Amino acid sequence: MRRLKLTIAYDGADFAGFQSQQNQRTIQGELEKALKKVTGETIIVYGAGRTDAGVHARGQVVHLTTNTRIPTEKWVWVFNHMLPRDLAVIHAEEVSDGFHARYDACWKRYRYEIDTHAIPDVFTGRYRTRIKGELNQLVMREAAQHLLGTHDFTALSSAKSAIKNRVRTLYQCDVESMTAGISITTAGNGFLYNMVRIIAGLLVQVGKGSLLPEQVPEIIASRDRGRIGKTLPPEGLTLMEVSYQPWEKSLHP
Amino acid sequence: MRRLKLTIAYDGADFAGFQSQQNQRTIQGELEKALKKVTGETIIVYGAGRTDAGVHARGQVVHLTTNTRIPTEKWVWVFNHMLPRDLAVIHAEEVSDGFHARYDACWKRYRYEIDTHAIPDVFTGRYRTRIKGELNQLVMREAAQHLLGTHDFTALSSAKSAIKNRVRTLYQCDVESMTAGISITTAGNGFLYNMVRIIAGLLVQVGKGSLLPEQVPEIIASRDRGRIGKTLPPEGLTLMEVSYQPWEKSLHP
Repeated sequence: MRRLKLTIAYDGADFAGFQSQQNQRTIQGELEKALKKVTGETIIVYGAGRTDAGVHARGQVVHLTTNTRIPTEKWVWVFNHMLPRDLAVIHAEEVSDGFHARYDACWKRYRYEIDTHAIPDVFTGRYRTRIKGELNQLVMREAAQHLLGTHDFTALSSAKSAIKNRVRTLYQCDVESMTAGISITTAGNGFLYNMVRIIAGLLVQVGKGSLLPEQVPEIIASRDRGRIGKTLPPEGLTLMEVSYQPWEKSLHP
Repeated sequence: MRRLKLTIAYDGADFAGFQSQQNQRTIQGELEKALKKVTGETIIVYGAGRTDAGVHARGQVVHLTTNTRIPTEKWVWVFNHMLPRDLAVIHAEEVSDGFHARYDACWKRYRYEIDTHAIPDVFTGRYRTRIKGELNQLVMREAAQHLLGTHDFTALSSAKSAIKNRVRTLYQCDVESMTAGISITTAGNGFLYNMVRIIAGLLVQVGKGSLLPEQVPEIIASRDRGRIGKTLPPEGLTLMEVSYQPWEKSLHP
């Protein structure tokens, strides 16, 4: 038995999310189907995080256990032959038996892309959320600074979530210009349900002037999800990286 | 009555081509549906070219006639509100009654993109064709030079086409490197059915060494479609521009 760690990328637009669901096209489902074809085995895939329907990934990580003798260096090539165009393995390595893609992750990085251009771009429309009107990036950056550090993020996570411990640490929250839009890049030791999309929504409210950056600490402290606007849609969100090394500030200036 | 000229862009992956077909999602069908919503009129849209299923456009041109009083400068904004994410109007202008998107076109430019990277890119997979193995760009460029000028392009068009006059003039045929692949950009006064995809296939054969550049003139002269390999798939192809001004070499060095 060998344990493999795969780094995968997907265009999430045509998937009903990561997790297997009956009669739905999911990342886990397509991976397990391809694994069956390649190895003949019924293999369960464990992901670092269950991305929602419509959310993309450039660096999702999964692990699996297999008896196959296919050499690790051929794995990417062999496996990609069995995968659809919108799902690909970009790296494969053998790891120790105890490795777990989800429980061993130290931090994750997400990116939320917003298209602010007056004319829609049909070639990035699957990967960005369109927001009309000007966004003031200076105040968005100021608000983002208030999110950094360790907080109870109840006010910035889905009210539907049943999880108890909502304390998480945010290491990074950058607002940057890109062609025809802006991106929000955030890294943390864990993210609650819908948290990145709610953070993006909060920053957009600030960018539009309907919230002030200095209101952010008080909103966090309220632990009240009702204090800010709606969750932004999934299409702008991409899981960029899952890391199994502790965050070092020196490496991410 | 006003005649409008619209420049449109689309991600062709989820369309059954430009031309209206019953029970199929087409560019023409979606445009006419949106026009009905905006104007209340039943309007027929005439395209400069009927792109196939899966083919994209960054600069397709259509014309239409309408009684609507919506000012031309608002047209892009109003119309895009009614269009799906993969279809957009990027420019609108009022033209003279006699203007015809197809018959008045002087030249068109297409681009065919090929992904040669070992690992598939899920975010460009809808817009590029994957070709395995090395492609020698030097010989591809040499072969492309032989295609320029005025020829009977029967050998490089679909055998299914019933058209009589197959003489066309190619003004441009450039082979260029791009990130993780190569692109073929070609402009001409007209293109026969499947002609760009067959030209791309010919150049790939040359790039792989199964044809020599100096064989190209003789292949064209044969007027025999059977002389070269298969038509490359539609996903790599994009209609970049339709021009209503004569080609001037000085403007396209």
